[in-house]
Formats: sequence, structure tokens, C-alpha cells
Amino acid sequence: MKSNSVYTVEPLKLDRYSLNFYEALFHNANGYIGIRYDLEEGVPQEYNLIPSQYINGFYDTLEVKHPEYLHGFTQEKEIIVNIADNQGIKLYLGDEVFSMFKGTVLESRLSVDMGRGVTIREVKWQSEKGKIIRLKITRMASFYQLPLFTIDYEVEPVNFSGPVSFESTHNRQVCNYHNPDDPRTASEFLQLTTPLSCEVKEDGTSVEYRTKRSNLSVASCVSHSLFGKHEEEISAKDYQGSSLLKTEAKEGETIRLVKYAVYCDSLRYKNCRGQAEEEIKKAKSVTMDFLYERQENYLKEYWENCSVDIEGDDELDLAVKYNLYQLIQAVGKDRHSNISPKGLSGDGYEGHYFWDAEMYIQPFFTITNPAISKSLIAYRHTTLQMAKENAALVGHKKGALYPWRTITGRECSGYFPAGRAQYHINGAVAYSIINYYLATKDLEFVLEKGAEVLFETARLWLDTGNFHEGKFMLNTVTGPDEYTCLVNNNYYTNALAKYHLEWAVKLYKKLGVYDDFIKIKEKIALSEDEIEEFSRAAACMYLPYDEKLGINPQDDSFLQKKKWDIAKIPQEKFPLLLHYHPLHIYRHQICKQADTVLAHFILEDMQSEETMRNSFLYYEKITTHDSSLSKAIFSIMAARLNMEKKASAYFGESAKLDLLDLQGNTIDGVHIANMGGSFLTIVYGFAGFRLKEEGISFAPMLPKGWQGYRFEVCYEDSRIQVQVTEQECVFELEKGTPKRIRVYGRDYLLEDVLVIERNSSR
Amino acid sequence: MKSNSVYTVEPLKLDRYSLNFYEALFHNANGYIGIRYDLEEGVPQEYNLIPSQYINGFYDTLEVKHPEYLHGFTQEKEIIVNIADNQGIKLYLGDEVFSMFKGTVLESRLSVDMGRGVTIREVKWQSEKGKIIRLKITRMASFYQLPLFTIDYEVEPVNFSGPVSFESTHNRQVCNYHNPDDPRTASEFLQLTTPLSCEVKEDGTSVEYRTKRSNLSVASCVSHSLFGKHEEEISAKDYQGSSLLKTEAKEGETIRLVKYAVYCDSLRYKNCRGQAEEEIKKAKSVTMDFLYERQENYLKEYWENCSVDIEGDDELDLAVKYNLYQLIQAVGKDRHSNISPKGLSGDGYEGHYFWDAEMYIQPFFTITNPAISKSLIAYRHTTLQMAKENAALVGHKKGALYPWRTITGRECSGYFPAGRAQYHINGAVAYSIINYYLATKDLEFVLEKGAEVLFETARLWLDTGNFHEGKFMLNTVTGPDEYTCLVNNNYYTNALAKYHLEWAVKLYKKLGVYDDFIKIKEKIALSEDEIEEFSRAAACMYLPYDEKLGINPQDDSFLQKKKWDIAKIPQEKFPLLLHYHPLHIYRHQICKQADTVLAHFILEDMQSEETMRNSFLYYEKITTHDSSLSKAIFSIMAARLNMEKKASAYFGESAKLDLLDLQGNTIDGVHIANMGGSFLTIVYGFAGFRLKEEGISFAPMLPKGWQGYRFEVCYEDSRIQVQVTEQECVFELEKGTPKRIRVYGRDYLLEDVLVIERNSSR
Repeated sequence: MKSNSVYTVEPLKLDRYSLNFYEALFHNANGYIGIRYDLEEGVPQEYNLIPSQYINGFYDTLEVKHPEYLHGFTQEKEIIVNIADNQGIKLYLGDEVFSMFKGTVLESRLSVDMGRGVTIREVKWQSEKGKIIRLKITRMASFYQLPLFTIDYEVEPVNFSGPVSFESTHNRQVCNYHNPDDPRTASEFLQLTTPLSCEVKEDGTSVEYRTKRSNLSVASCVSHSLFGKHEEEISAKDYQGSSLLKTEAKEGETIRLVKYAVYCDSLRYKNCRGQAEEEIKKAKSVTMDFLYERQENYLKEYWENCSVDIEGDDELDLAVKYNLYQLIQAVGKDRHSNISPKGLSGDGYEGHYFWDAEMYIQPFFTITNPAISKSLIAYRHTTLQMAKENAALVGHKKGALYPWRTITGRECSGYFPAGRAQYHINGAVAYSIINYYLATKDLEFVLEKGAEVLFETARLWLDTGNFHEGKFMLNTVTGPDEYTCLVNNNYYTNALAKYHLEWAVKLYKKLGVYDDFIKIKEKIALSEDEIEEFSRAAACMYLPYDEKLGINPQDDSFLQKKKWDIAKIPQEKFPLLLHYHPLHIYRHQICKQADTVLAHFILEDMQSEETMRNSFLYYEKITTHDSSLSKAIFSIMAARLNMEKKASAYFGESAKLDLLDLQGNTIDGVHIANMGGSFLTIVYGFAGFRLKEEGISFAPMLPKGWQGYRFEVCYEDSRIQVQVTEQECVFELEKGTPKRIRVYGRDYLLEDVLVIERNSSR
Repeated sequence: MKSNSVYTVEPLKLDRYSLNFYEALFHNANGYIGIRYDLEEGVPQEYNLIPSQYINGFYDTLEVKHPEYLHGFTQEKEIIVNIADNQGIKLYLGDEVFSMFKGTVLESRLSVDMGRGVTIREVKWQSEKGKIIRLKITRMASFYQLPLFTIDYEVEPVNFSGPVSFESTHNRQVCNYHNPDDPRTASEFLQLTTPLSCEVKEDGTSVEYRTKRSNLSVASCVSHSLFGKHEEEISAKDYQGSSLLKTEAKEGETIRLVKYAVYCDSLRYKNCRGQAEEEIKKAKSVTMDFLYERQENYLKEYWENCSVDIEGDDELDLAVKYNLYQLIQAVGKDRHSNISPKGLSGDGYEGHYFWDAEMYIQPFFTITNPAISKSLIAYRHTTLQMAKENAALVGHKKGALYPWRTITGRECSGYFPAGRAQYHINGAVAYSIINYYLATKDLEFVLEKGAEVLFETARLWLDTGNFHEGKFMLNTVTGPDEYTCLVNNNYYTNALAKYHLEWAVKLYKKLGVYDDFIKIKEKIALSEDEIEEFSRAAACMYLPYDEKLGINPQDDSFLQKKKWDIAKIPQEKFPLLLHYHPLHIYRHQICKQADTVLAHFILEDMQSEETMRNSFLYYEKITTHDSSLSKAIFSIMAARLNMEKKASAYFGESAKLDLLDLQGNTIDGVHIANMGGSFLTIVYGFAGFRLKEEGISFAPMLPKGWQGYRFEVCYEDSRIQVQVTEQECVFELEKGTPKRIRVYGRDYLLEDVLVIERNSSR
């Protein structure tokens, strides 16, 4: 990775919006815990910011009430819990307290260092009485020790000596954030936990609390190291911990306080309180340097597998690195967790997991870090039973239907036409397994965790669809584009179902060589007859096509709907879902996001070049990109169709979506799936990478203004580095055995390094 | 009317279900107030029955919360209020209290006398200590004095003399009923009012209370007459009134207590408390005989216009009379009220008004009592502004969209796919105006109250639909059959819209003769161009037709959906909406009720005989009749298509639906629309009556087993009596000028009496 992998804001803006924005943008997370960036010293009350921190997959449940309840409607939903706030540190300089809202901020800078895995705030500040300090606050969510979060707080008294103290708090009484005007946030401010215990320990405080309905516990411990001579008073009251640390400052000599905070939950740890106390001890038993080194090492390995470098556009290069960094911050690393659309950077979407994990993020891990991909598949395997119960609830006689939004596997969507009806989630889960197989050929893992999931979800297509005039149809479902719901034969859904069924048949044969497969077949009562049915449905799958326009209609009736000129919609009316009744939206040819275009990307062999081009141009005109999942896909398909200018434009907007808050809601959390999309855009889009049964292939292009770009992909036992420049494409086998690769349609054997002249078009 | 117009249950069953059932079946109402039949002496607490009484259109509002709120979703809904319970009368015989759950019920009988407009309970009862009494309790909701409800309580001490007292209560603290398992009832127990005042008056108690959110007041007053020497103590505590009346009984001498209760609300009365006190005085200023006589006179006139007699099937004859009696009990008689599906017999559907008022009930009033039809049209006229706001909320640039369910005109549906999406409500409102015009030729009233409504609703079709390949399409709407929602080109909706638009054009021309029409045109900015567009859309209206089956598909995609064999669905799974997720239901070819078949009934000229026959047979197989609106229509169309046996069978089930509780939910209220359907079945079904622009026509058939039947219809200035027997059809002009009528396809001039041989088929 290049050295400039630090993203910095300078100076800090102190308005409510900016601080809310930094909360998300500079959060620290490691896939287990996530801490939003709240200023340790606090902000004015009227800003109404809620310091927030989460454990991935740690949830409470809420009763869901419907104005008109119908059978099978969600009656209980899960919601990620805002756990204890351990961020608070007030700094007293004699009788003055540090605040960026008092005195004078002389300098300020906030940055995230993607190589070291820390955020750093540097402030030079003068108090009202004239005391000047330099602050450097380094925060880390440790990849080495997942429950650990540290705040390394350095104060240099520039022009004074005298008493300095820190009041560091440990506050359990936090609420979940909500915005009543936005359905994408939680529905109300919620205090989801009740306290169990609060103790002052020798070197800190320990608080344990329990969720109100899901009955899960979480313990947090806080402890401090203040270097040099000092006094410490630790107290606990009303289940809130507090430490007061007093010392004497000497002009020019830096004082350093380290605040250690750990979180352990009862999902992962039997005795979470005991474990939290152990974790604190463990953290304090080593130096901070040791912890920082481990952090850096972890990330070094990460970047070795997935770093992307862009030459000639530093901003974009940095934006992409920022995005890839968020992916490793977000991704759950055990079977209890997956990847939420906001990662651990906010409780937008209530911490639920959706299909975008499989379609936008997992493809990245599959070809850079397949072990993580395994863990994500394991999560779906763990929740298979609930998916089967969900299918039964919707009236299916067999099969599994993965929930549209969930934490533990139960369907949490409160509006089924744009929730439970999105059956394509099943296709996404299957796609991720097939993809994992294609990238790794790891049939044993497919057998162990993938097969049951793949067949149970394949079955659901049969139970959902029906033959009509010789075609297999999937009626009354919703595709990725939620601006039409409950449609018949959504092209994306049908195409993915076809692919899924075809692969169910192929894998059935491949898995036949394993004895253990017999057990699975018996367990789920899978017969040859059913596999025959899979074949038949796949072969007869109806894929809507319009002769006149030469495009794939998004669904059976899409083209007969009214047109709605996007150019005439006032800017403030976007996103449409916040400003128009669904009836109005559904009645128009308007798309929230890539739908058919996404299908063309992932399943390009199902249609002619011509149809894909026509479709791209048709849908481009009517897509609002109100979803952050859209532009990356439009970029990829533009690249695929040799529309370099469009590909670059869409990529730019996608890559910088959060850094520039282009969607307008980064405050609720960064857009993790779009960040996966950044990687896909470079690798699948510009470099034309494809991962198929017949092998891998490339067809690199170079966006205008770039000098070149570079990335790695893992394939089977190998890692291949790809470098694209104006003149050539260099493929280097970094590790593993030689591989056949196809470049610009020609086959090569990659043994060491392969240099191929770059084509100006594909 | 025949003399046997009394429906009696004997003996009374005392289980919870039966008492709950009687509450609805024997309720007293007059279109303004409705009192469910609760036993005056009370029932065991564990029966959990809530004495209920309502004022038509008197509502409170409730906040509506959605698990996932989307733009324009209903945020506040209206709900009918259970007003003060004035039913309680405890009867003490010395130290014993009368209860049907103690001692011995020797005889019991409950009946509704449809000629006299009262319900009568007669009980012979022996106390545990051996006292025997005969009770006769006559209840009346006065048509003569709408705020008045009376309980005429007669006690005959059969075998004893001694002290007898009555404790009569006036209880404000009542809740609305709910059943958590049924979406068709209110969503929770609700106490909707707060007390304002409670006073003991000279001769009774007066209580005034206000709704919590809608800020409407209602006053109720109670007073008594106890004939003979007695003492009376009146008290009021905690806003509850109570009267204790003591007398001495003599063996064999009947004691008679009359309890007068009045309700006046602030929607109708400026000073509702003062008015209630006046109303009590007014009631007590005359004798009960006078009040009974007025009641009987009112009903005599009613029955003169609408009585139906069936010869040869007394049960059916009585069932139909029962149904027609409920219609006059239910119908609102001012512009604040309409007809709720449960009338005033229960708070099922929360007292809202729906489209069935216009399509099932109003056609009855239009040809028997057009003044009531005017009042119903006036209600829609009153709420036009809200319908325009509702249209705007759904994104329409102009026009009015009547709400799916409402009291005052605001949309109260909490599930829009089976609520707000039912745009056919607009067609129903227009249909009722057109029908009124056809029956009365009263263009002046159409001008006054109908025109604006008709044109504003017509406009909405244009703003909703679009031309596609030369056809005018209405996409993303829901038809009457809620077992598929959000469909394209629902045949019923499109056909009705076509009719509506055609009539908008016709009435535009007809109204042109009035000067006042210019004002209306200006007010709503209606231009010739728009009328042209109406014509064009009507002419091009797409009406789905399937060549292969020769039927009108219910919507564009209905026939491609899965089939679901009704015979294989277990009996306990009906109604399907309570046992299957909507996704499952929507995905199948299954109907809750007549939809295309209803369109064929009301708009028979749009399709060939063959198409209607094929369609009937097709839909008959897949219709569950889970809605009470279904069987009457199937009966009518069966008669229309000469399937006499089916017509009779459907009619029987429809006519006795409530008396036999065939739908299983009569406890929530009787099914008023189906009761309108009973009349339509006889008149439009068996007698083949049609009301069209070219005049009225008949084609009578005689169901097997009947000797004959008789009814009246009003047409323009005339009333025509129709008598059908085995051999002949007799048309008698009871009043008005001679009329051209068409019988079995031939035209006649009806001047006095016309006797035509009955055809065995049409």
C-alpha cells in the first residue's frame, strides 16, 4: 500500500452536522465492536448527539405493531443496542475545562490512519485564561484483541505548569439514536438495557447490564494508565463509573493518559463480566506500543491481499483505500455476525444484515480473504433453521427463505412489499456460496456449510414459482429496486434463480463424491427427482424480453407504466421514497437503483451484448440512484459496455460517496456495501475481471486521467497481482501454482509474470 | 308487508357466544344511535362483554404508527366511540336480584318486531327462594325522535307480593371492543372519552363527556317513569349516574318502568347537553303509546316502498325482511354520516364507511327511498375537499380520491395495498350518482351535490392511468378482491372507470343547460379539452380479455399465477386472510369475493353473454367468499345467466348470513352490505331488473320451491309493484305517471296493471 493512506480533515468544523458526520466517518471498529467518533470532552447539549458504540450482532428485540395486522406480519424485531459509552474524558487545566466550544481552537485536525488502524485528533487550544495545550488523541478498536478499545490521550502544556486532571466516565445510560422523519433509522429513542451490577475495581470500573427482552448481557470495564505521578479516585454511582485522575503538569512535558475500555457480551462469552475483567488485565499487561504493532501487522496482512492503488488520481486512490479500510472494520468475524449496511459506524437500518452483504461485500472478501467469506457463509448456515421457519410462515411447504433484514435470522422487516417479498435474498445467499466455490474450489467447505443452504433455498424457487405456458414464472416478488414492489417475473430475480438452480444441479453432482453428502441428502430429503425439477425450472425460467426496445424489462408490467421525467423532479424531492407515496412511485417507470443492470453484471452470459447495452441506456435514464447500491453497478456495466466516461463518472461518485456525504445520510453510518462496490468497480469494472466455472478472465481498461492502477486477487491457491498502465497489463503470480487466465479473450498460462499489451477497447 | 315480520329466538341460550351474537342481532338503531342488545341485568364478568352504543359518525382519532413509515402513510385514523352505557337495570325482588344465571329460567324469548320497530325480551323466571316473575322488556331506538332510546320494563310478580326495586345505571366509563386476533376489529381496548360534567337533575341524570383527541362532546341523559306509587333516589358519583326506584309489588299486578335515555352529540347540536335535556323532556311529555305509534308509522311508510314478500319459503321471507329492517336501522340520515359495514350494530371496522355503501346499499335506497340516497350523496359532497387532499397526498396533480375507509373523509386505512390502493371507491361514488340520476332524472340535485364529485373523481382516472400501445391503462391499483393487491388493469376498476368517464361526458352535456353549471366549471377549472380526454380514455380503456379461456381476467397477470385448489384447504383455514401471509395469497389465483363477476353484473353491456358465462364459471371455482359481499353477487349473476339452482343456493346463504352467523363474525356486527345484497338479489337477480339510460327492464324468474314473490321499485315519479308467480308477472303502477318498461326484451307501457306471461327462461 502506498504511504499516503491517511485521510484527514483539517480544521474540524464544529457545527452539529459536521460533528455528526465525523461520528460516522471516523468511527473505530474491528468487526466485533464499533465506536462512533464522539469528542471525549463532549459537545453542547443542544447538538443532541448520542455517543454510540455497538457490538456486532448484539441486539434487543422490540414488539412490532401494525395498524392493520395480517397473518405472518413481523411481530417482533431485533435492533442493535447502543452499549455503554466509554468515550467520555473531561480535561481540567486548574479550574478550566477543555472544550472546543470555549476558548480558542488554534489548530485542529482529525485523521484516520488506514495502515496503523487508528484515528488521531490533534488540537492546539488556548483557554479563556490563556493556557495553551497541544492535544493528540489516538483511538483504536483493536484487531488483535477484539473486545478492546483504547483512547491514548496526550496533553502538552505549552505555556504553563500546574494541576491537570482527567475525569473519565463510563456511562451505561445510553439510548439508541433515531430520526422521526427517516424510515431508515430506528423508530424511536430507546433505552434498551437495564443494569445488573456496577463495581469499582482496584484499577477501574466494571458495569454489567442486560437487554430488556432478548435477555443478553454485556459487561464493560474501564481502566486507565496515567504515566507519571498522579492520584486516582474511582467511583460508581447509579450504575455509572467515573475516574478522577489528578497530576501536576510541567510546561513542555507531555502528559499521557491511556483509557482502556473493553466490551464482552454473553453471545460470545459465557461469563462476560469475568471475561471483560480478564480482557482489561490482558490489555494492560502489555505496552501500548505492543498493541499498536499488532494492529499494524494485522492491517499489513489485510492490505497485502486487497490493496488497490490508483496512479494519477490521489483523491480517488485515497477514497478507495478509505472504503476498503471500512470493509475490514465492518465485517463480523464469527458466526454470530455478518455485515450491516452501516457496518459498526451507526445504527442506521437498526444494525440489520441484508442481501448487500452477499452481493456487494462478500465478492470482495471471496477473492481477497476467503476465510472471511467462509465465516459469512457460516453465519447463513447458522440461521438456516430460522430461514426455514420463515418460509413456512409465508406458506411454503418446503425450503428456506432468508429474511430481508435480520440480526439473528428472524425476519424483521415491517413493510413486507419492500421487505419479506424480496425473495432475491435467497439468490444472493446462493450466489455467495457458488462464488466462494468458484474462487476456492473448496468443495469440502461447501459440503460442510454451503450445501444445505444452497438446496433449501433452491427448493423455495420451486415452491414459489409455477409453470405457465411452458415458462417457469416467479410471481409476486420484489426485486432489488424497491420503487416497484410485488411484481411478476422481476428479471433480476428470475435470472438469479435460474443461475441458482443450475448450480444446485451442478453441485449436487460434484458433491456426490463425498460420503457425507448422503447424510445431508437424507437430512433434507433431497431426491434425484427434485434435482430434475431444478433442471427443468432453470431451463424454462422466464426472462422478460421486449422485442421492440430490445431490452429486458425489469418485470412483466414495467414498460406499461407511466414515465416520470427525472429531470423535472425538484432536487429536494430526492430520495423519492421520503417524498412520494409508494402508490405514486410504484405506478411509474422509475428505479431507485440498478436492478436489471445488476443482473446483467453478475450474469452477463444470459443476454446478448446488444440487449445489455440497450438495457443500460434505458434504465440509466430512469434511475434516481436513491440507493447507494446503484452507482457502482452502473459504473461496472458502463465499463463492461466500453462507455469509459460514464464508468469513470459513476465510479467517482460511488467512491467518494461517504467522504463527500453524497447520499446525505452518512451521519447514520457509512455505506459499507457501496464501499465493496468500489473494489468491484475497479476489479470487475475497469479490469474486467470475471470469475466463472471456466476460470478467471480480465479485460482491463484505463480510465482517462489515470496513469495506472494495481490490485490483487486470490484464486484457488494463488494470489495474482494485476497492474494496468497506459501500455500494458502486468500479471504477476505472487504465490501459489501457475494458473490459466484469459485476457481480452485469449488464454494464457500465468507462471510468473505475464505482460500483455493493453487493448484500448475490449 | 306480511304479518309475520317478527324474528324470534326461543329460548335464549346463555353461553358467551350466543349472548355476544344477540348483542348484534337484536341491536336497536335508527341511523343516528345504535344500541347493542346487552341484558339490562348484566352477565357474568368472565363473559367479557362490553355494553356498546354508538352515534353514527361520532368518532375520536388515534395516532397510527407504522413499523416502517413511508411517505403518505396514514398517521391518524378515526374510530367510532362507544358512548355511555344506559342499558343497565338491576331488578331486586326483596333481597334477591334477577339474573338469568341464577335461579331458574322457566321461559325465555327474544324477538325483533320489524313492523313495530322494537325488540322484546320475555322471560319467566323463578328465584332461588321460589319467587316467580314474568318479564317483558321492550326496547326501541326511535325513528321519530332520533336521540331517544327507551327500555320499557314490565314485571309481573306471579306468586308473591312485596318490595321490588330497580337500580338503573348510566355508565360513562366504557371501552371500545377489540379482538387481538382479528384485524377487522379495533386494535385495542380503548377508553376514548373524558368526562366533562355529571349532574343529578330533578328527574334523572345528565352526563357530558368529550373525546380525547377529536374534541367532540356528547351528552346523555337518563330519566325514568315508574307507574304507580314508588320512591326514587338519584345519585351521581365518579361521573356515573344511578337511580334507585322502589315500589311494592302485588301478586299478579304488572309493574312497569320506562327508562328514557337520550344521546346528543356536538357534531349535530351546538349545545348538546342542553339539547339532551330538552330531548328527555320531549320524550316524557308524551305517552309511550304515542312513541310506539310514531315508530310504527315510520316503518309502515318504509315498508310500503321496499317490502319484499316471498311466497313458499317463510324462512327466507323472514330473513329478507330482517335484512331490509337492518338497512333502515343502519343508514345515516344526515350529511355527517353514511352506512358502515356493520351499521350501528357493532364497532367492527371501527365504524368506518367503505365503498359497499355505494355499491350494495345505496342502489336499494335509490329505487325505494331516493331521499336517503340524496343524503348519502350529500355526505360524499361534504367530504370532497378531503378527498382532494387525499389525492394530492398520493401524488396526484388534480382530482379527488375518496378514502378507502373513513368517518369524516380522511383516509384511515393502515395497510394501503388493501386500502388506499382501492381506487375503485371513486367509481363507486360516481356510480351512485349516475344511478341516482337514472332512477330520478333529478338533474338539479346532480348539479347541486353530484357534479363536482363526479368530475373531480373522473379526473383522477386520467391522472392515474396512462396510454400504452393505444390503450388506456390503470396500473398499480387494487380491485374489490383483496386477495390480489397492487395489480395492473383490474377488470372491475377499468370497466367502472370507463363507465364513469362516459357518464362524466354525458352529464357534462346534460348539465350544460343550467347557468349554475358555469360556476362549477369555473370553480374546478373544468374545460372542454378535459372532457375530450375523458372521452378518449373511456373509448380506449383497456379491458383485459383472454382469448383462450374466453373470460375477462381479473387483472393483467391473474391467469399466470398459481392455482390453489379450494377443496383442499382445511375448513379451519378460512377466511384465508387470517391464516395465510398476503404474499402467499397474492401469488395464487384465488378470490376473496366477486370482482370481475361484480363488474359483469353492474356493467353487463360491456361483454358478451358468453364471456360473462365463462367468467362466472371460472371465478366460481376459485372464490372463497371470505367476504360477505360475494354470494349475493354470485346469486345475481347466476340468475342473469339462467343458472337457477346456483342463484337460489347463493341467495339462501346470503340472505341468512347473519341469522345463522354463516360468516362466523356476526358478533362484531351484522353485515349491512350483504343485506342490501339480499334486496338486489331478488330485484336485480331473480326479477332481472335493470336501470339504464334507455329505461328500466325486467326479466323475472322464479326460484324452485317458491310460489311467488313481490316487491316495489320507485322510478322517476312512479312506484311500481311487481308480482311474480309461476304463471305470470304482474306490474302495477301504484303511483305516478305511466312508464315504459321492458319485460323479457319487449317494450310495454305500464299505465295501470300489466300482466305478462312468465318466461321459463330469459
